Order: sequence, then structure tokens, then C-alpha cells
Amino acid sequence: MSPVSPTLELACDLISRPSVTPLDEGCQPLMMKRLAACGFQTEPLPIEGVENFWAIRGTTGPVLCFAGHTDVVPSGPQDAWTQPPFAPIIDAQGMLLGRGAADMKGSLAAMVVAVERFVSDHPDHRGRIAFLITSDEEGPAVHGTRAVVERLRERNQQLDWCIVGEPSSTDLLGDMVKNGRRGSLGGTLTIRGKQGHVAYPHLARNPIHLAAPALAELAAEHWDDGNAFFPPTSFQISNLNAGTGATNVIPGTLVALFNFRFSTESTVERLQQRTQMILDKHKLDWHIDWSLSGLPFLTEPGDLLDAIAASIHEVTGRETTPSTSGGTSDGRFIATLGTQVVELGPVNATIHQVNEKVLASDLDLLTDIYYRTLVRLLT
Amino acid sequence: MSPVSPTLELACDLISRPSVTPLDEGCQPLMMKRLAACGFQTEPLPIEGVENFWAIRGTTGPVLCFAGHTDVVPSGPQDAWTQPPFAPIIDAQGMLLGRGAADMKGSLAAMVVAVERFVSDHPDHRGRIAFLITSDEEGPAVHGTRAVVERLRERNQQLDWCIVGEPSSTDLLGDMVKNGRRGSLGGTLTIRGKQGHVAYPHLARNPIHLAAPALAELAAEHWDDGNAFFPPTSFQISNLNAGTGATNVIPGTLVALFNFRFSTESTVERLQQRTQMILDKHKLDWHIDWSLSGLPFLTEPGDLLDAIAASIHEVTGRETTPSTSGGTSDGRFIATLGTQVVELGPVNATIHQVNEKVLASDLDLLTDIYYRTLVRLLT
Ligand SMILES: [Zn+2]
Ligand SMILES: [Zn+2]
Repeated sequence: MSPVSPTLELACDLISRPSVTPLDEGCQPLMMKRLAACGFQTEPLPIEGVENFWAIRGTTGPVLCFAGHTDVVPSGPQDAWTQPPFAPIIDAQGMLLGRGAADMKGSLAAMVVAVERFVSDHPDHRGRIAFLITSDEEGPAVHGTRAVVERLRERNQQLDWCIVGEPSSTDLLGDMVKNGRRGSLGGTLTIRGKQGHVAYPHLARNPIHLAAPALAELAAEHWDDGNAFFPPTSFQISNLNAGTGATNVIPGTLVALFNFRFSTESTVERLQQRTQMILDKHKLDWHIDWSLSGLPFLTEPGDLLDAIAASIHEVTGRETTPSTSGGTSDGRFIATLGTQVVELGPVNATIHQVNEKVLASDLDLLTDIYYRTLVRLLT
Repeated sequence: MSPVSPTLELACDLISRPSVTPLDEGCQPLMMKRLAACGFQTEPLPIEGVENFWAIRGTTGPVLCFAGHTDVVPSGPQDAWTQPPFAPIIDAQGMLLGRGAADMKGSLAAMVVAVERFVSDHPDHRGRIAFLITSDEEGPAVHGTRAVVERLRERNQQLDWCIVGEPSSTDLLGDMVKNGRRGSLGGTLTIRGKQGHVAYPHLARNPIHLAAPALAELAAEHWDDGNAFFPPTSFQISNLNAGTGATNVIPGTLVALFNFRFSTESTVERLQQRTQMILDKHKLDWHIDWSLSGLPFLTEPGDLLDAIAASIHEVTGRETTPSTSGGTSDGRFIATLGTQVVELGPVNATIHQVNEKVLASDLDLLTDIYYRTLVRLLT
């Protein structure tokens, strides 16, 4: 381990704590200690065993909040790693390796160091700086950011701008930021037939045969065209199961798990209606348990996106691309406060994989980008 | 327990032995003892741990063989039975209850008692009487009748007529006999896509979506019209599985288990070709492991079917219906010897279920039918 900057030193310290979701393993106390030392009021907000904290510096004016998570996904088979996942090193290629290097302990370190530097350089900055950190983003994400946001809502806590440290870059640092996310609507579809013996098909109703044309139609359906900010809504069946294992039994039911990732051009109600219309058209005996994981959110161009884009250009020379692609993130909860939310973090090529890594020098550049965004918005 | 006839007494004795497949539990020694006592040469033919026997009486002339199995399917939850499954009783409605009452210890008892009576009445009958009994019909059926038939083939054992005791009747004793069976051709179809994340469907190829139109077409396909003896060939998917359980992962493969029950109007090769053509038409990356369980067999009207139909009419007043419907049976193996094979047994309404039962008086009538068939063919 050879950290060469405050950001890398803090990143390594965080990575060396095996905070597999929902564990925090001392990451948050470490961050709170650093923030308290530069004038933040820090407040642990444990909820149902999940560790979260809220911290704020300043008393009036617009609030720029940094948000993120200290938990990481499991390392997977340790043998598959070129070195232990919780023993970070910087390799000969200048890559910082370790679980969480990209998602998102590198970003957390960059935030803390950027804020320390900004507060030192601009002790009397305008507005307020805040942190909203959870240890349950990679897990159920019920008692994490979502629950903290509800506390903030109850307190009428103002929250103008939020930078989420999720690894948003695809090839080069800053090439992409996320200014929104699609909604996610899941469903468990059960199609009922009538069980029987394959030798007596006339006495049974095979739910696989009955379902196949409807599933084909659902898969081929064009749900919307998307818009300037969102790709078209997509429908995917993730799991399909029917049958008892016995090869001579026609099953009684088929179960399909499906998921919509939907743009702001579709509503939950309309997607549900159209799905149900297709099933009814095929005269199926069906039931769906719907589960809404998140509504879509969108941060249109404005103060925050402008400040971030300008800072990225200043530090890297790159024009960033705002995008709403990819999975859901905790940004969807924060956006419900009326906050402008943008996700900005390092390259996500190796997240959730073995040998997760990030270019070490990118974390120093990310620190600079966060710093310059603070300067643009709070000076 | 109140047996009122030799057939019922023997049936109860057999049922009280819990010969859950592939166990025999002394059923075959009991049968062999009875047959030896009336002049049969009996020969145990244990094969790979499966108990079978062959028995024959007489030295020349046409052979009428009785075939069947002593094994039974598991009882299922004993609590669901109105009385213990291996403690046969005749209830107030005159039903003989117990596992194997219908499939097929009742038939075995009827065969033995019919033969005993016939030999006693016609000690110098023409031709030969044989028994081919296995304890592995309800299980894999590899080391049972199939293996015994291979032994008989090696010995050039003549086998003109065979009555299999499978419960062929549907509502009333003798209303149906089976003069053939459809073929059974199974397949394990794997459709390959490309695994990915539901949020990035453009990077994945969902095998469920790709397969659905092809499965719909296979399910709707008309394979043949059947013929005078066979219903049309039927195709059924018994099991369909795709997905890891995770709701955010597009699976990499889909696996479908399917089965053809096919008439003599289709061949294995033609069914395989047509299946593959449909998959190719949908441009799928597919693989099928084929498994042929049995070719179709057919016993056209002739000596055996005529003798059985006349005997049924004589005993019950009913015109029997020859049929090839239903599952496969060990008859398919015996038919490969060039033998006329007909299945004749009691009502099959409760087979493989809890509270398996058969009208006790039907077993006495079945004994009479077997007896009269012996008289017609061997006197
Ligand atoms: Zn993350
Ligand atoms: Zn049977």
C-alpha cells in the first residue's frame, strides 16, 4: 500500500474495513470524525440496525449535500482476486484495487477531502454543506437513504443540490454523469392452467403453452419512445418457472418474474393496464403481484448540472454526457425532496466484480471536481 | 379384511406386502410357488438388483403369456388414506382398498387364479402358458421387462400372445382394453441468450424473450392427424426454467423439457426435424438432448384381441373398446418380440392416488375373463 495523497490514504483506510452490506465497520465514525473536525454537526441516524449519518455545516442558505454509502457488495470468491479484497494496494499500473474502490469508497474519500480543502480555503463560504451517508444501499435499501430522507422531510430540512458518489463514468473519469434514473416496476406473474399427465393432455391445460404467445407479445411490445432524457421503457422477464421436475406431468401453474425500467413517458398505472390487457387478450387465468421499486426521477439542466459539467471540463478537459441509463440508485429517494440530484463518481467498469479497481489518480481528479463544484455553488 | 374368493384372498396377500418400487417383498416367490404347484417351470431372473421371474407351462405350441409388475408407487401421505395403504380391506361399498389394488396386484391375483382353474379344468390344454413378471415397472423400468425381453430374445423364446394386467378399464370393467400405445419421445431444449443486467437490456439477449414465439409455435403445431388406432401426436412442455432467482439479472439460458406422445403416423426422425426447423426459423441458438422412451406399438385386430373381446362380452355383456390412449407401458418392450400384446385390467380411476381401490367383485369377473380367454386360445 502506497497512498500518495490524502484522498488515496482515506480511500485505503475505508476499503480496509470489510463493510459488506449492511455492515459499516467503522467507516461512518471515521468520516464523521473528519467532518466534525472541520466544523460539521454530525448526527448518527441508526434505523432498524442500519447505520446512517447526517452531517451539516453552516446555518443558512442553499444546501449542497454529498450522498453515498459505506457498504459494499460481497467480495465473491477471494481466490479469484489477485490480492485480498479488503487489503487495498495501488498496483504497477496505478490502479487502486479493493472491494469498494469504485463503488463507492473512492468517492467518499474524495468528498471528505474536497470538503476539508474547501472549508480550509473558504471558511466563510455561503450556504451549507451536508452529508447523507448510509450503510444499506447494496442491500434492501429500506432503512438507509429512504428512511433518512423521511426524517429530513419531517424536519423540513432544505436540500437544494445533491451529488451522489455513485460511479457514473464509463470509460474515462467524468465522461458521464447521471441526471436521473428510470423507474423500476416489478411483477410476479402467475398463469394458472390445470395440472395433468402428459399422456392425457386433453384433461389438462398446460400453462406453458397458454402463456407462450402472451409472453411473446409482452416481450415484443413497444411501451414508449422515451424522450430527450430517457431511453424507451424496457420490459424484461428475469425468471420463468413451471413444472415439478417430473417429465410426465403437465404443470398447473407458470410463474414469471418481470421488471419494467420505465421513462417519464410512462406511468405505473398505464404499464399495469397495458400488461393486463395483453394477458386478458390471450384469455389467460392470471394474477400479478406488483412491486414498485422506484419512480423515475430527472434533474433537468440547471445550477447543479451546470456547475458539475463546468468543473469536469476544468479538471479533465472533457465534455460530460448527462444520462439516465442504468439501474436505480438512492438518488430516487433524495429527489423526492425536490432536490436537484446528480450522480458523479469514477469509472464503473469493475463494480460488483472481483478485482474491483479504479485509476488511483482519478480519485485525486474527482476530489478536484467536487472541490470546484463547491466553489461554483457556495462562493 | 373379508376375502370372499381365491382371487381376493391372493390380492389381499399381495397388497399387504409393501412392495414400493423397486421392492418385491415376497410377491414373486408367492406367485412362483402357486404356479409351480400347477405345473409351471419357474425361473427367477434378478437383473441388477431388480427381481423378475419367468414361468412357463407346456413344451410346444403357441404361447399365451401373462405379464405384469409386483411393484407399486409410493403410498403418499399415509394420513390421507382412510386406512393404512398396505392393510387391504373390502369396505361397505364392496371396494377393495389398498396400494396396488388396481395397479396391479388385483390383476396378478386374477391371472394366477384363472390359470390355476384353467389348468385344473384342462390339464392337457394345447400350447403353452407363461408369466413375465417384474418388480420395476413403476421405476426406471430398465432392468425389468425390457431386460427380461432381451433374455427371451436371445433364447429365441416364442411368444405369440401377451395379456398385460395394466388397469385398462375406465368406468366399468372391460369397457376398454389397450391394443397399443403411443411412442414417447422426450427432449431437453436449451436456448442460449446472453446474461446481463435488466437495466442494460441492450447488452444482453434474453433467452426467455427469444424463446417465447418459438415455444408458442411448437405448442400450436399440428403434428399429424393420428389414424384409426391412434389419436393425433401431442407435444407438451412439462418443465420450463430460466433465471437465477435474482430479479435484476437477465438469464443466460432457458431450459425446457418437452415430450411427444406420438402415433404411428409420425416417426422419431420427422418429429425431430420439424422441431428443429421451428427453432431454426426463429433463429435461436438452441441445443436439444433427445431421449426416446418408447416407440409406438400396435396390436391390430386378430386372435388375441378377438378372444379377449369375446370373453369380456361373455362375462360382462359389454362391447370393449380397443384404445391406444394413455401413457406408455411395458407392453412396448414385449411387442418388439413380434407378439400380439393387449392390456386388460380393472378400472384405473384411482391408480397412483391415495385410497386406491377397485370393485372387489370386478376382480372375480376379471378372473373369469382371463379364464375364458385361456379357453378360447388354448383349447
Ligand atoms: Zn454504489
Ligand atoms: Zn401398472
